[in-house]
Amino acid sequence: MIRFADPAAFAAALAALPKADGASRDAALDRQALLTKPAGALGRLEDIAVFMAGWQRCERPRVDAVQAVVFAGNHGVAAQGVSAYPPEVTVQMVANFKAGGAAINALTKACGADLSVVALDLDRPTGDITRAPAMSAEECLDALNQGAASLREGTQLLLVGEMGIGNTTPAAALCAQALGGEARDWIGRGTGLDDAGLARKAAAVEAALALHGPDCTTAFETLRRLGGREIAAMAGAILAARLRRVPVLLDGFIASAAIAPLARDNADLTQHCLAAHCSAEAGHTRLLAALKLEPLLNLGLRLGEGTGAALAVPIVRAALAAHGEMATFQEAAVAGGQ
Amino acid sequence: MIRFADPAAFAAALAALPKADGASRDAALDRQALLTKPAGALGRLEDIAVFMAGWQRCERPRVDAVQAVVFAGNHGVAAQGVSAYPPEVTVQMVANFKAGGAAINALTKACGADLSVVALDLDRPTGDITRAPAMSAEECLDALNQGAASLREGTQLLLVGEMGIGNTTPAAALCAQALGGEARDWIGRGTGLDDAGLARKAAAVEAALALHGPDCTTAFETLRRLGGREIAAMAGAILAARLRRVPVLLDGFIASAAIAPLARDNADLTQHCLAAHCSAEAGHTRLLAALKLEPLLNLGLRLGEGTGAALAVPIVRAALAAHGEMATFQEAAVAGGQ
Repeated sequence: MIRFADPAAFAAALAALPKADGASRDAALDRQALLTKPAGALGRLEDIAVFMAGWQRCERPRVDAVQAVVFAGNHGVAAQGVSAYPPEVTVQMVANFKAGGAAINALTKACGADLSVVALDLDRPTGDITRAPAMSAEECLDALNQGAASLREGTQLLLVGEMGIGNTTPAAALCAQALGGEARDWIGRGTGLDDAGLARKAAAVEAALALHGPDCTTAFETLRRLGGREIAAMAGAILAARLRRVPVLLDGFIASAAIAPLARDNADLTQHCLAAHCSAEAGHTRLLAALKLEPLLNLGLRLGEGTGAALAVPIVRAALAAHGEMATFQEAAVAGGQ
Repeated sequence: MIRFADPAAFAAALAALPKADGASRDAALDRQALLTKPAGALGRLEDIAVFMAGWQRCERPRVDAVQAVVFAGNHGVAAQGVSAYPPEVTVQMVANFKAGGAAINALTKACGADLSVVALDLDRPTGDITRAPAMSAEECLDALNQGAASLREGTQLLLVGEMGIGNTTPAAALCAQALGGEARDWIGRGTGLDDAGLARKAAAVEAALALHGPDCTTAFETLRRLGGREIAAMAGAILAARLRRVPVLLDGFIASAAIAPLARDNADLTQHCLAAHCSAEAGHTRLLAALKLEPLLNLGLRLGEGTGAALAVPIVRAALAAHGEMATFQEAAVAGGQ
């Protein structure tokens, strides 16, 4: 099990990321050229097959074991009126996940992913980032390690999602801090905020940036000061997946924001990630562009929970099915192969 | 089984299309508002659930029986050098479909759709549309009826795809004739045509339009003169599905072009269709806009065979899973429902 002993160990892991296997990528590319279709005619499905081959270190990768984890946390900044829903909804939705009644339950069942839920100290919200750091160093390290520990042996594709009333506010702060731009470039209506709420959200992000900005010198400090427990847990899970060479289907705005500070410290961090979708949350388009990720889907989702990631699993499965099962021009005696 | 006795019967069917059930759509919309998510947060998944409810005439629709049919035909206009592949590839690919080695085999297996292949007189190419009508009235009617006959009892979602070397040329001619614009607005590189081939394709479309345009006064005459057997069969299958209230996942440029003449005669024709994807074939974006369809996927596919439609099946399944299985705010005791 991957565990970061201290902030320095986390930074060291982030600085020394394993890479995809070039020989396996090349072998997959060679195979694509032989399959009974015009070159390039399966578009991004071909790219996905090559991507998976590189991380799985084989010519014909598989995705039998898909693992989804939803992390939940509560946020002191919710007291600033930055969400359309009250904070108690976080714990109520965790109960809904456990009872099987949420969107992510239906979508992981539909795509054949194994779902687990990690609730992080829901009765102890983080500090209000407009006034204090979200977490102590111990708390942040614990959240990162709970995320890392969630990755199971044998997982071939990881989906991470979140639930946390108010968490688009720390997500926007993380983006602005890690990637630049103004608070208004990164905030959106979340679960359905009105104009007054949106103004409160902008003010909260600006206050947090003013208070913590100068101290956000590393990914760890940025996550600790501006993030949240479920956000740090997602970052820990995504980094742990990389250390094990497990590809990740990134969900929406908050999951993407969780790795923005990591990508600032090491731009290679997103190489094992596929962006499942572009959320309707305002900042996600800009965020994916900054992370150099092109979304697979664009269906107007803005729910979180990992729902966008679950929706993209069949795209990955289809890509690998075509790559692994199609006949070559020679096998099928079809004219025109290259 | 639906059968069009003559061109007048085809026209009469097209003029009197059944509609989705408004009460079932309303019931599905009401249910969406109760589910444990912010209103609208599942984006187009919510629209799909309501669409399926209207056609299946129930509040919680299902898609257990998904049927995919690939129609294959050969084209006299292929002799004009409008494809990167030789015409014998059509029959070779039909053999590949039957042996299970093509992309559509892998993708229908991955999405749980039942696949069948209908090869239409491959040893007898249509007339070269630059010089003669593609088909006689009897031939066109037979193709429409083979398409209609392919729809099985119990199918809940229909996918139609095609294989036919050279068929982006008649497809472009159908679009220009039915929807206006110049040949160059509708032609693309198909399976990978070079610049000289593209110029020959433009010239072929222009010649076909000049020869047949004034006689293309109905959907039937347009399909007969400018289409092809697999194209007419797709039109017949899609119309038959409508008559039975079976929703259709439209594949790419050629499948969409097949219904362009029908949509010109009755703009309501596309109401039972979801556009599965936007193809990389140049004219498809314009074609979908003219048909008032917004694609679900945009992954750079340009293969045909129904591959884009198969790729979108899990999106429909996921939409119905969320719609049918999620708990309501009241059931889950979550605060904030409307």
